[in-house]
Amino acid sequence: MKMLWTPLILVNLKTYMEGTGKKALELAKKAEKVSRKTDVCIGLAPQYSDIAQLAKTFSLPIFAQHIDSIGPGSFTGHVLPEAVKEAGAIGTLVNHSERRLKLAEIDAVIRRAKELNLVQVICTNNANVSLSAATLKPNFIAIEPPELIGTSIPVSKAKPEIVTETVELVKKVNPEVTILCGAGITSGNDVTAALKLGTKGVLVASGIVKVKEPYKVLLDFAQAATAL
Amino acid sequence: MKMLWTPLILVNLKTYMEGTGKKALELAKKAEKVSRKTDVCIGLAPQYSDIAQLAKTFSLPIFAQHIDSIGPGSFTGHVLPEAVKEAGAIGTLVNHSERRLKLAEIDAVIRRAKELNLVQVICTNNANVSLSAATLKPNFIAIEPPELIGTSIPVSKAKPEIVTETVELVKKVNPEVTILCGAGITSGNDVTAALKLGTKGVLVASGIVKVKEPYKVLLDFAQAATAL
Amino acid sequence: MKMLWTPLILVNLKTYMEGTGKKALELAKKAEKVSRKTDVCIGLAPQYSDIAQLAKTFSLPIFAQHIDSIGPGSFTGHVLPEAVKEAGAIGTLVNHSERRLKLAEIDAVIRRAKELNLVQVICTNNANVSLSAATLKPNFIAIEPPELIGTSIPVSKAKPEIVTETVELVKKVNPEVTILCGAGITSGNDVTAALKLGTKGVLVASGIVKVKEPYKVLLDFAQAATAL
Amino acid sequence: MKMLWTPLILVNLKTYMEGTGKKALELAKKAEKVSRKTDVCIGLAPQYSDIAQLAKTFSLPIFAQHIDSIGPGSFTGHVLPEAVKEAGAIGTLVNHSERRLKLAEIDAVIRRAKELNLVQVICTNNANVSLSAATLKPNFIAIEPPELIGTSIPVSKAKPEIVTETVELVKKVNPEVTILCGAGITSGNDVTAALKLGTKGVLVASGIVKVKEPYKVLLDFAQAATAL
Repeated sequence: MKMLWTPLILVNLKTYMEGTGKKALELAKKAEKVSRKTDVCIGLAPQYSDIAQLAKTFSLPIFAQHIDSIGPGSFTGHVLPEAVKEAGAIGTLVNHSERRLKLAEIDAVIRRAKELNLVQVICTNNANVSLSAATLKPNFIAIEPPELIGTSIPVSKAKPEIVTETVELVKKVNPEVTILCGAGITSGNDVTAALKLGTKGVLVASGIVKVKEPYKVLLDFAQAATAL
Repeated sequence: MKMLWTPLILVNLKTYMEGTGKKALELAKKAEKVSRKTDVCIGLAPQYSDIAQLAKTFSLPIFAQHIDSIGPGSFTGHVLPEAVKEAGAIGTLVNHSERRLKLAEIDAVIRRAKELNLVQVICTNNANVSLSAATLKPNFIAIEPPELIGTSIPVSKAKPEIVTETVELVKKVNPEVTILCGAGITSGNDVTAALKLGTKGVLVASGIVKVKEPYKVLLDFAQAATAL
Repeated sequence: MKMLWTPLILVNLKTYMEGTGKKALELAKKAEKVSRKTDVCIGLAPQYSDIAQLAKTFSLPIFAQHIDSIGPGSFTGHVLPEAVKEAGAIGTLVNHSERRLKLAEIDAVIRRAKELNLVQVICTNNANVSLSAATLKPNFIAIEPPELIGTSIPVSKAKPEIVTETVELVKKVNPEVTILCGAGITSGNDVTAALKLGTKGVLVASGIVKVKEPYKVLLDFAQAATAL
Repeated sequence: MKMLWTPLILVNLKTYMEGTGKKALELAKKAEKVSRKTDVCIGLAPQYSDIAQLAKTFSLPIFAQHIDSIGPGSFTGHVLPEAVKEAGAIGTLVNHSERRLKLAEIDAVIRRAKELNLVQVICTNNANVSLSAATLKPNFIAIEPPELIGTSIPVSKAKPEIVTETVELVKKVNPEVTILCGAGITSGNDVTAALKLGTKGVLVASGIVKVKEPYKVLLDFAQAATAL
């Protein structure tokens, strides 16, 4: 299995053209280079149709952006956990703010992912929801205030208390959950701030995927992560 | 581009294990063999994560099972039309009974697909909805009474009037739409019956994907299609 | 039954506080006064919990804002067509831009409404979708470009071609459908413009519900409607 | 405010014809009689359009079956918490198995309900989800295994461990949450069993609404509840 460790920089390629198909491969190449150079774990969450090629070509841990809480069967157009696993994903985002799930579905997705040894990263929008999510025993929680996503205002500066409260509450009910934070992260400084608040890494999208020099920015992120 | 012609046997691999990953490749190999032998067009609609590998390996036309009505952007976990196109899909199912869409979404999906020259197959549940869908100018309509899907009761026998009424109504508002029918199709006889009702092919899933000898059944389907 | 005729001013109270509970009753009183004075039909679409009181108190035709495509049964939290009918509604909005429905659901809702003699007003976002909706044989189609809803830019001025194209296309497939238009309507002039484009009335919300003097504005609307 | 106390028999009228309009009033009359006779609290969760009439006529606590996580505004067809409050509801079901909500929505609904002093009853499907829901600090959790809903197999007998595990887990994170249980409850014995497992009452639907003699069955339920 592709190794997964912390500090973790998890790059969500969303449905950006800069993160689709060949462009996803180019980005992955840079990410792999940075990861090797700095020994920081860099994960990628590409679109479903790019998982197989990325997983085959690179040593980076690949995540699905979502899986459905289904088993094999008649679910046309849905995302079968077994399929993304066979394509090479080692984990999945769950409940991203652009793909929110029902509570009972999150519970079911986590169970399905555990059955298949897929790493689970539940995305949450506030400390209370993080606590609620933590009781479902995911591997990771990524706290991302939706209002900061896509901005250049880092959560670690704008709303540090959401992160620290998440870290604190989650620790109480489930100390085994690793916390990431996201939204508005655009520089190594933001990564440093995130780690200082008690997280073990960041979930980032446009801050890497849509910048002119992703290699440079990723390197900045990774060096900040190791400096601590 | 992969050629698409009629009669068309469009095989929906759903999220069956028998149609996922390596198994999808094995099935595609058989389908390609039948298509070459009989000159019947056989399309496959695999899961998103299998599109690229199938499109690269086989000469069959590959369809997505669904695309979202989005453009490039912040849509984590969604299916970008550009992504399935780049992966090698030449078309997409739209509004399958297991993935129904809002009316305004179907309109938007058809527009996005046309922009990208992706062939559109709108699935419908009755003649009236077929008519409604036809006004949105898709390339294909696949009429499938949901209550027969997954059974071995072919729509062409159980509810032939749904098919003939669809053919008739659609012809009036949009004679350029090609009609397929689906649900319960398990033999060459069912294919013959479907074509006799005025369709140009079938949409099939378990009848091919979950049988012991898919090659044999596909050949039976294809030979029936050319016999007419 | 409460009478319904054209020209029709259909006021959607949405979930505005100014259109909830006692405030809905006050607004209805003014609407009834204008309707009596001008002989223009004024319908109200209040929240579910206000239907009964409004229907009992006033002679205005009351519409639900939405009904579900269900029959009696186990559908907690859904809106049973029979329930809004018994509460006194004579019809329902269907597929409002803030409550879009799947195509197959619209078809099913229209069928259920017809069974119960509930008048159906399908809301649509463009001419093509209007045409598609018209094939489902509703009583009314209300064309409302979503981007103009809540603005003071009337569709009849900003995008008159959407209205005329809707009128034209719908007439071809189903001349029995009555067309309304909505979005951005704030004055009698806008109503006049809407009627001149071939509609038989307007669907309006904030333009009446959230103004300081709803009586005065409604009167302006109604007088414009009768002047033609 | 209508008083609310335990033991609580909360009757969900769903969208049953036997619980709609006039029939809802008849049922409420019987429930009020039983409540007065036995001093057991009986709540009713009718359809939205019946809330006002029931709340005005009877001294029973009335619950909405669902509210949306919205404030006043442009949300046609949605359920404004303020509207059901003004109609006379004192609380609401949240996340019923027939109306599941996204996790972030449940959090938002609970916040909105608390703002308006509406009592919240989150419905859950298993012990883990109950725990997750309890962290959101609702007043009540009603544990109902979906597979038993509508059957006559009481959860208290078929799956007592789901109830006891819920009681235990919830107590740890939030001892102020009151637990109800539901699904398959048809007799006083089932009520007794539910209370013995540590709950403070039951959520019931067809077991009361669809029986021939609701008065008699409700009385049986209530007497069992007081006998303990």
